[in-house]
Amino acid sequence: MDYVKELRAFPLLAKIKDEDIKILAGLLEVHKTQAGENIITEGDTGSEMYILIDGMVDVIKTTVFGDKFVVATLDAAKHCVFGEMAMVDNDKRSATVKAKTACTTLSIDHLSFEKFCDEHPKSGVELLRLISINLVRNIRTENNNLRMVYQALIEEIETN
Amino acid sequence: MDYVKELRAFPLLAKIKDEDIKILAGLLEVHKTQAGENIITEGDTGSEMYILIDGMVDVIKTTVFGDKFVVATLDAAKHCVFGEMAMVDNDKRSATVKAKTACTTLSIDHLSFEKFCDEHPKSGVELLRLISINLVRNIRTENNNLRMVYQALIEEIETN
Repeated sequence: MDYVKELRAFPLLAKIKDEDIKILAGLLEVHKTQAGENIITEGDTGSEMYILIDGMVDVIKTTVFGDKFVVATLDAAKHCVFGEMAMVDNDKRSATVKAKTACTTLSIDHLSFEKFCDEHPKSGVELLRLISINLVRNIRTENNNLRMVYQALIEEIETN
Repeated sequence: MDYVKELRAFPLLAKIKDEDIKILAGLLEVHKTQAGENIITEGDTGSEMYILIDGMVDVIKTTVFGDKFVVATLDAAKHCVFGEMAMVDNDKRSATVKAKTACTTLSIDHLSFEKFCDEHPKSGVELLRLISINLVRNIRTENNNLRMVYQALIEEIETN
């Protein structure tokens, strides 16, 4: 099974021509994960981006006090990807991603992704453009979170 | 003056071949800014990325209480770019950038950048790859800032 039909549904791949989707599909590794298992673990090194084909996952971060909290839940019905930060910069995982239900994911690692972009630069530009838009969206969300927590901190200081 | 030599020194453009650097240089607009003037204003819409060729700028953010604080100072000697978030997603400016000294910047807007990437996809892949790495670095910095402010908030709550 090459998952070409499933990949065609992903907004991230909307502008990739069919021929290149088939090549990309051939580079992907299939993973089946049971509910409760980690797909990615915060702090680990890793370079794969994951395309969520079936199931739901929780994105979990750890506070400086060691508490874990769910920052997002991703659903295959919404055609989500995760792990793209470490795929881009080959650095540590910024969050844990745990299967909430049984999941199927397709992964591509940093080297295969770079090779694909170099060999198919028109598709590479489209992919990197959409990944960049996702990254900017993440920064804008983080900016808002920071403003809210900062506001709470100042209000807490002022009421005491 | 086409600034090709200056552009060649920028890490962001390190892998762009000379021929494409010349084409890119032809798309750039030159701006001369006096010390104290805003180049970018937080909250404005705008789609240009700026390459800092000469001088220094302050990156300034506003808190929810209206206080302004300098989050970074960029120096042309370090071959900095700014404004890449709005160039990528064509949305609002996330910070003000103010000339700290007299500055020279070169700008490229969203549409010219997209066109360049489409027409020169090999160079487009290289540019978008390095922009993505910059964006991921920003997210990792924001994550750390958020963790620190969150820690301060919890400690403030617990001591009262």
